[in-house]
Amino acid sequence: LSSKLPDVGTSIFSVMTQLAQEAGAINLAQGFPDYDPPRPLLEALARHVLTPGHQQYAPMPGLPRLREAIAAKTARLYGHLPDAATDITVTSGATEALYAVLAAVVHPGDEVLILEPAYDLYGPAVRLQGGVPVYVPLSLPDFRPDWDRVAAALTPRTRLLMINSPHNPTGAVLTDDDLDTLAALLRDTDTLLLSDEVYEHMVFDGVPHRSVTAHPELRERAFVLSSFGKTYHATGWKVGYCLAPPALSAELRRVHQFVTFSVSTPTQHALADVLPLTGLYDELHAFYQQKRDLFRELLAGTGLRLLQVAGGYFQVADFSTLAPELTDEQFARRLTQETGVAVVPLSAFYHHRHDDKLVRFCFAKQEETLRAAARRLRAER
Amino acid sequence: LSSKLPDVGTSIFSVMTQLAQEAGAINLAQGFPDYDPPRPLLEALARHVLTPGHQQYAPMPGLPRLREAIAAKTARLYGHLPDAATDITVTSGATEALYAVLAAVVHPGDEVLILEPAYDLYGPAVRLQGGVPVYVPLSLPDFRPDWDRVAAALTPRTRLLMINSPHNPTGAVLTDDDLDTLAALLRDTDTLLLSDEVYEHMVFDGVPHRSVTAHPELRERAFVLSSFGKTYHATGWKVGYCLAPPALSAELRRVHQFVTFSVSTPTQHALADVLPLTGLYDELHAFYQQKRDLFRELLAGTGLRLLQVAGGYFQVADFSTLAPELTDEQFARRLTQETGVAVVPLSAFYHHRHDDKLVRFCFAKQEETLRAAARRLRAER
Ligand SMILES: CSCCC(=O)C(=O)O
Ligand SMILES: CSCCC(=O)C(=O)O
Repeated sequence: LSSKLPDVGTSIFSVMTQLAQEAGAINLAQGFPDYDPPRPLLEALARHVLTPGHQQYAPMPGLPRLREAIAAKTARLYGHLPDAATDITVTSGATEALYAVLAAVVHPGDEVLILEPAYDLYGPAVRLQGGVPVYVPLSLPDFRPDWDRVAAALTPRTRLLMINSPHNPTGAVLTDDDLDTLAALLRDTDTLLLSDEVYEHMVFDGVPHRSVTAHPELRERAFVLSSFGKTYHATGWKVGYCLAPPALSAELRRVHQFVTFSVSTPTQHALADVLPLTGLYDELHAFYQQKRDLFRELLAGTGLRLLQVAGGYFQVADFSTLAPELTDEQFARRLTQETGVAVVPLSAFYHHRHDDKLVRFCFAKQEETLRAAARRLRAER
Repeated sequence: LSSKLPDVGTSIFSVMTQLAQEAGAINLAQGFPDYDPPRPLLEALARHVLTPGHQQYAPMPGLPRLREAIAAKTARLYGHLPDAATDITVTSGATEALYAVLAAVVHPGDEVLILEPAYDLYGPAVRLQGGVPVYVPLSLPDFRPDWDRVAAALTPRTRLLMINSPHNPTGAVLTDDDLDTLAALLRDTDTLLLSDEVYEHMVFDGVPHRSVTAHPELRERAFVLSSFGKTYHATGWKVGYCLAPPALSAELRRVHQFVTFSVSTPTQHALADVLPLTGLYDELHAFYQQKRDLFRELLAGTGLRLLQVAGGYFQVADFSTLAPELTDEQFARRLTQETGVAVVPLSAFYHHRHDDKLVRFCFAKQEETLRAAARRLRAER
């Protein structure tokens, strides 16, 4: 049996979570909160589970009432009302949306531009389609895209460009200028855009999230992804969605119907109930900014150098003055097994050997969890 | 944008369900029950939704306690205890399992043998991997495999053979002899087996289900799929699983982690709670046999000729004496729009034009639904 992904092991998130459990470490590695979804959402799901007739297949593109609620949210936040019938597809998490978009549009030999560091599935999922990932590095120190390098990497074979803002793992966010530059760059090409916006509700310091959906030119060639798991502290529910113009959505759905077909019906009903409660997502920016600020304060004096975090729920830290002799993998392992705080080495977000002496912490945790982790990290010093 | 599946439209199941809704027809087209899951399962899910800490990512291959419960069920029914750690992967329905197995093992140019008629995703999902579906017809009148034709279709490029018992749409089941013949046929090849057994608990007339898992030789090269949606009347929950030896499971998981990553955590907990209640699935054979018998009785006098149904939850019927001038698509449309009973034309299960004047009814419906449908069908005569 010859593997289709011979060089790909188990996802770093599973590996570190497992290691954390074995070591009794506080898990700041895999990105998930250690608090529960909002009570109205939990109660809505419990209610729909007990509602007769809500336990069979949802329509393949998603429950109409959930798609209507997504359309209304999109109009409210980004000034564009998508057509719920043709532009919105509900998926088994943003993961399935990412995978299915790639499976739908990447033909063998097509190039896909990926800005590195990047979420670990981008490259392998492109390769599974017979596509060729072309990696363009984000620029240190703040991990912003260098659009000249992107322009230089574009070829007539570039089927798709993948962007992600707020960015996992670095917390960088794209600006209006970035989107305008990108629009100009793609204007005379056939290149499509995949915009991974799963952290759309976690942008800090009063800066608004710049969604591709709000950009009239870009959205015409874009698949825009969001995640209810991130927005509602329910990563275990596995529901996300994709916005795209009708022709692109049609291709996505052709594939989605054979990848998972549809998504949990009671869960979709519950999400449709709470999506109109705008406060639940409006308050997230402040909620996570407070966690970011607290965590950064707590890490002062650990010897870690903290990079800027403009959005998302991760903090990247440079350990080069603490342990210059260790690779990021060795340092991540030592933090997990000896200090008792699990993290992800940034090399996991690169397609080949790369070591900037950086690790990623997830700060989507209760205050007491962040405090306990910081105590361990400070004791280490 | 050039489509990867230019000839594939919206799944026939969505199309007919939509048509049924528009026409106010009784939907015997798409395969789902019109009754709810067992009360203990509903209550278990409602409970786990309200259990703190059960709403975040499950481990990528599935919750350990659910995999243990699946292992125990497998040992009880098929005399083989799989290793829960290495042999079982929980997926977003059997659909994702099917798709991910194909994505994991089918390399571009590989041939995949499909016995036709076949579930509508098999062919397109093979083609999305760059694989070549090779179709071998099942033999009329009882839709049994002709193993000589299968043998003749095997080549050194045959990566995978797909079987399905009980069979959708025809209700045929494989026997011990079939499995032995198949084992001999594959013995000196590298061909893998995908055994779709989602109707494993619906086999009639006292015949036991012959699982590939119970066949020591075949299971060494097999992915065996099951569906909690079918077993627990919860098609809308989208949870299934795949049993396979460690080396095969490892390849499946490499892909699964990028296709959906994991499956709803509270739903997995609920399934783990009820799987030990063996009565819930043991009684299904009798439960569905009664529905089959009732439905066949009710259809007597409609002019439809009913084919044998050994398992599953579908009844195939020949309408050639009723409406010889119509194609199966025209007849299905007429039944849906004029008679008010939605069905699926069997041509939907073939990769190119094919018309045996057959349609498929789903009898996984309440007695009153079946009676109402039969009244409409008899009035038509
Ligand atoms: C699907 S597990 C990974 C979760 C996540 O988004 C991350 O840790 O980056
Ligand atoms: C995923 S919708 C199809 C349901 C089904 O199994 C069938 O109708 O054959």
